[in-house]
Amino acid sequence: YCKRKHKDKKTLTLDTLNPQVKAVEYAVRGPIVIKAGEIERYLEEGGTKPFSEVIKANIGDAHAMGQKPITFLRQVVALCTFPELMDSPSFPEDAKRRARRILQGCGGHSLGSYSASPGVECIRKDIAAYIEQRDEGVPSDWENIYLTTGASDGIMTILRLLVSGKDSSRTGVMIPIPQYPLYSAAISEMDAVQVNYYLDEDNCWALDINELHRSYQAAKQHCQPRVICIINPGNPTGQVQSKKCIEEVLHFAYEENLFVMSDEVYQDNVYAPDCQFHSFKKVLYEMGPEYFNSVELVSFHSTSKGYTGECGFRGGYMEVINMDPEVKAQLVKLLSVRLCPPLAGQAAMDVIVNPPQPEEHTFKQFHQEKSSVLGALAEKAKLTEKILNAVPGIKCNPVQGAMYAFPRIFIPPKAVEEAKALGMQPDMLYCLRLLEETGICVVPGSGFGQKDGTYHFRMTILPSIEKLKVLLGKVRDFHIGFLKEYSGLE
Amino acid sequence: YCKRKHKDKKTLTLDTLNPQVKAVEYAVRGPIVIKAGEIERYLEEGGTKPFSEVIKANIGDAHAMGQKPITFLRQVVALCTFPELMDSPSFPEDAKRRARRILQGCGGHSLGSYSASPGVECIRKDIAAYIEQRDEGVPSDWENIYLTTGASDGIMTILRLLVSGKDSSRTGVMIPIPQYPLYSAAISEMDAVQVNYYLDEDNCWALDINELHRSYQAAKQHCQPRVICIINPGNPTGQVQSKKCIEEVLHFAYEENLFVMSDEVYQDNVYAPDCQFHSFKKVLYEMGPEYFNSVELVSFHSTSKGYTGECGFRGGYMEVINMDPEVKAQLVKLLSVRLCPPLAGQAAMDVIVNPPQPEEHTFKQFHQEKSSVLGALAEKAKLTEKILNAVPGIKCNPVQGAMYAFPRIFIPPKAVEEAKALGMQPDMLYCLRLLEETGICVVPGSGFGQKDGTYHFRMTILPSIEKLKVLLGKVRDFHIGFLKEYSGLE
Repeated sequence: YCKRKHKDKKTLTLDTLNPQVKAVEYAVRGPIVIKAGEIERYLEEGGTKPFSEVIKANIGDAHAMGQKPITFLRQVVALCTFPELMDSPSFPEDAKRRARRILQGCGGHSLGSYSASPGVECIRKDIAAYIEQRDEGVPSDWENIYLTTGASDGIMTILRLLVSGKDSSRTGVMIPIPQYPLYSAAISEMDAVQVNYYLDEDNCWALDINELHRSYQAAKQHCQPRVICIINPGNPTGQVQSKKCIEEVLHFAYEENLFVMSDEVYQDNVYAPDCQFHSFKKVLYEMGPEYFNSVELVSFHSTSKGYTGECGFRGGYMEVINMDPEVKAQLVKLLSVRLCPPLAGQAAMDVIVNPPQPEEHTFKQFHQEKSSVLGALAEKAKLTEKILNAVPGIKCNPVQGAMYAFPRIFIPPKAVEEAKALGMQPDMLYCLRLLEETGICVVPGSGFGQKDGTYHFRMTILPSIEKLKVLLGKVRDFHIGFLKEYSGLE
Repeated sequence: YCKRKHKDKKTLTLDTLNPQVKAVEYAVRGPIVIKAGEIERYLEEGGTKPFSEVIKANIGDAHAMGQKPITFLRQVVALCTFPELMDSPSFPEDAKRRARRILQGCGGHSLGSYSASPGVECIRKDIAAYIEQRDEGVPSDWENIYLTTGASDGIMTILRLLVSGKDSSRTGVMIPIPQYPLYSAAISEMDAVQVNYYLDEDNCWALDINELHRSYQAAKQHCQPRVICIINPGNPTGQVQSKKCIEEVLHFAYEENLFVMSDEVYQDNVYAPDCQFHSFKKVLYEMGPEYFNSVELVSFHSTSKGYTGECGFRGGYMEVINMDPEVKAQLVKLLSVRLCPPLAGQAAMDVIVNPPQPEEHTFKQFHQEKSSVLGALAEKAKLTEKILNAVPGIKCNPVQGAMYAFPRIFIPPKAVEEAKALGMQPDMLYCLRLLEETGICVVPGSGFGQKDGTYHFRMTILPSIEKLKVLLGKVRDFHIGFLKEYSGLE
């Protein structure tokens, strides 16, 4: 005898699911990556393919691609985790000093305590000091620093303040296209309006101020654009913004009263000799007090990128400038519901902003390890651009910074038709075929956004140089075969 | 010359802030805790008060109150963090074996890689094995296990699936009153409808099935109740639910097609000799396949409580039963946007579900440390109840489990009037006075919810026995003085 009111009916189904969750897309771990996982399992179980391993070039996951951790960083975090190691002579005094300082800032001197919701006070102070040094003296107030659980967490939190799904005029969030799909996913989940401004592929993916104006004016017809998101250096596009470009963006934000979110997680990943990272904050400062005292700006950083690549620690911070004090109190309240970011990630962040100094014993090894990672990345950035541009039907802008190439690929009309018949984006068809034939997992450009009728993919430049050469060779051969097949030249 | 369209007006103000964020309240880190921080700083700067230190009994932060970490857990996490320690003879083989296994499951064998969004596969498998053992053979499928960033993160994620703010019929979320304010905060942020069911203070805070029916029927008049949240052992109330009670709740959920969220983070914190932890899942299983194959149930666990108290690691997991496979795919997609939970927290969770076994060398020390923490907590639970109940005007239910006492306090009508005149809850006035006169920081019952006209506070039982005795003595003296003052007996 069953009294259940709706027998055999689940409470939570695709029909009753929060529709905003349904609308979310996140290509970096999307269908193609799920397929790659299936193939990996198939190979492990003894299945055969034309390749022996899947190479995951879909995500900026440096250690998974063989990058070694920075010894000093891990020493400090290990000391914080197991303070009995303070007595071990095999740990350098420099690392012990930092670990002691971090633990002094933790409740009960333990990494197992909650920190204050904005993070451990002494780590916030170290970050502020680091920013001041990076920006050549532009003041940074430690109370404007908030530790986060990776940069993604900070970006979601700030958007949450700005976006009200129920707002009748609806909040417009300006994002670059191509973009990192965290932004479009967050916008979907929060039911904001995605306002696209297109980067200029013909000009090394530069941001064009006229395009910003166009995008803003068009959006104003149907929503209220309140925030502009910038990714510099660019993900997936790898461009490094010039100081002039940043000035123009900030001037535009100033004029239109836009809140600025500056995703600067690749600030240490600049390879092109003629490029330099300029922080939005420093440029704002140099524009004068009229700007520096008014534009609301949040900048994000992370332990996951740079030369450390410590993704698994989920460390990061944001610096919040010119935020209304009442809103800041609301921000702290919102952060407090999730209690605090992980302490090991906070400790890792502290090492990044407070690395060994030239007079310290650990400096030499640290510096060697750092240079080795960044030097290899610069070499791989060049190599990737060069090899890809030698393939007919592929055009790749210089990888000035970050960790990705985002080449444009020519897809023959026949392949476009076939994809449409299959109900899939043409570059998804391309990437699926690439995966199935070579084991290389890259993400279709449609997951990041691109101009209609253009096709791309994003690949990381993280594999070792040897592996990267093999990978790019396989991409070349695949591409040539693909063109042949769909151009009817077979 | 200023071209700014709205000069001197911030983009983000209290008026333009997402109103759902504004509506959030989180008492555990609320106004009273901010005040406590101010007093702490005042004392540090040489100010004087009738006390020398602030005692933060507001939050379940064990290490901050002096609890020592479990050595074995920290050894494993340190080994994972700095694998060079694998060669160190001062680390036990048992810990190295576990660390090696965890690292085998990590990309590039590094804690610095992202894991799959649901967590490291071998850790998910260890958790499933642990649950099967805990539940005496009830099957657990590792693919139903999702690692989380503390339990809070899991609870928010599941609610996000269930709640659509734009739904015209609006989603009702049933929560106990008193509750842990994460629930009310999440409900506010997501714009769901909070549906209160009151625990029975006169019956040791037991859950009464008739009250569930009452609450559900009343809610149906104005919203669609879709989910019931249970906290067992209770926070802030400390009760441990009987098997019969759990059966009744599950039967009710079954009949009314409610999604069940079972917050079981205090499952290792049961002190009363006549009480025992029963997992919702095991009870569901024992109710027969009709129930076990249909009721949608998610259970949450954490590294932050139990005998480890590793809050800072932000580790946790959830087990998801009977979730629609299509919804599960959506859950994985949503998790993937935030990439993955922190790896050190995942490793800590692994140690909790895979502790030293009797035949291992590390067992004795591990067992001693664990028993010592749990034994002290049991003693403090009894002590707290006993001392508080000896105070006239305070009545405290037995602390059967968890880490808190939630005594009822009599507040004289004169004090109630004074509080109202100040625009504050009477128990907020009480707790502010307690803080200012004694340095003891506890959280007013109004932050957790309570029956109208009753007043409580929540305090942790985490301070050392010596400190707890002093603390409770001060509470007693303060309470007697407070009663005297407001009863006009001065």
